[in-house]
Amino acid sequence: MRIALLGGTGDIGEGLALRWGYHSGHDVVIGSRDPDAAHAAADDYEATLESHGSDAKITGFENAMAADRADVIVLAVPPYHVADTVEAVADNVGAGDILVTPAAGLTRDEDGFHYHPPSAGSVTALVADAAPDEVPVVGAFHSLAAGRLADLNADLDVDTLLLADDEDAKDTVAGLAADIDGIRPLDAGGLANAAEVESLTPLLINVAQRNDGLSDLGVRFR
Amino acid sequence: MRIALLGGTGDIGEGLALRWGYHSGHDVVIGSRDPDAAHAAADDYEATLESHGSDAKITGFENAMAADRADVIVLAVPPYHVADTVEAVADNVGAGDILVTPAAGLTRDEDGFHYHPPSAGSVTALVADAAPDEVPVVGAFHSLAAGRLADLNADLDVDTLLLADDEDAKDTVAGLAADIDGIRPLDAGGLANAAEVESLTPLLINVAQRNDGLSDLGVRFR
Repeated sequence: MRIALLGGTGDIGEGLALRWGYHSGHDVVIGSRDPDAAHAAADDYEATLESHGSDAKITGFENAMAADRADVIVLAVPPYHVADTVEAVADNVGAGDILVTPAAGLTRDEDGFHYHPPSAGSVTALVADAAPDEVPVVGAFHSLAAGRLADLNADLDVDTLLLADDEDAKDTVAGLAADIDGIRPLDAGGLANAAEVESLTPLLINVAQRNDGLSDLGVRFR
Repeated sequence: MRIALLGGTGDIGEGLALRWGYHSGHDVVIGSRDPDAAHAAADDYEATLESHGSDAKITGFENAMAADRADVIVLAVPPYHVADTVEAVADNVGAGDILVTPAAGLTRDEDGFHYHPPSAGSVTALVADAAPDEVPVVGAFHSLAAGRLADLNADLDVDTLLLADDEDAKDTVAGLAADIDGIRPLDAGGLANAAEVESLTPLLINVAQRNDGLSDLGVRFR
């Protein structure tokens, strides 16, 4: 399968690119608004993979071209860019493709980080509103720490929660999650359940900041 | 230390009463609006503890009398009763006491359970608003499954998140949590961070319902 990581030059894009490159045979395509940045990141990730004994190839393209080449398109962009990014690639996704959103809306004050959803109710709902009707949206990978993904020596042993109204699309993304050693995909229901899943992101940051030895935190349901 | 579980005839009250009785030397007092129900539950829990080889004694009283006898008062009541319950016992708590709230506001629809906070912003904030000024409030035990607590043969191996603006009170409740084998207390910050913690409750129910083998679910941060 071919996976595009739009905004793949950022932290979560890097982490997922390296993990899919390292653990799976899927083609990974890095997208960026700046094609030169996409090429450079792809080369950088390939070099990291090579240093870990992997010969996985990673390519880089402008976001719309990256989306055009892929079956599964991950919106690895900040939450305030997800709607713009979906619009920018709308002509390059269609039936048979899947959009994946890992973003959560956050605010920060003196107490810590807080969940701050857009008016659509969640970032996942915002993506679903912006996506072409024939393209299913899956929420996933919210609770994965980017730094831990990007450290190929780090054990993961964490869960990721999947949200979708299209069960086939959810199963496909659950399979991609399970392809990464140490990630267990769990079904969290339909898109209407996204706010509680996205709320994990600020919670994980707060807990990591306040408890010794818990940086780059993930979660295991048990 | 003496711990009162107001509404301790319910599921979460039973679970915490049995675990503190079994794993710690703390005095456990069951509170209920109906003193006869409190007595009956206390006798029932004592019998369960005895069947597991424990000689822990548990007593039962009307809520206000239970609160009066305790240093730490856990509001083990449904979220729509927390404000009433705090008002009912306000004359029986004072400086040196701690109020603990494990409740989360939920709604349910065809998609599953959703976090539905009161207008105060969280159940924790509602309790803080209702509590006497000199009594600190700690949010805790939201993500513990009552049925798993009540099964003294079950391993817990889960975390609980602590919320408080009073660090001493938070430390005291963290200590009580740690007294239960298999529970690790983690600091989630001040009361302003409560919504994200309370949102775990509907999330855990949704995940438990949708994934085989994950009933009575808890969470471990790692």
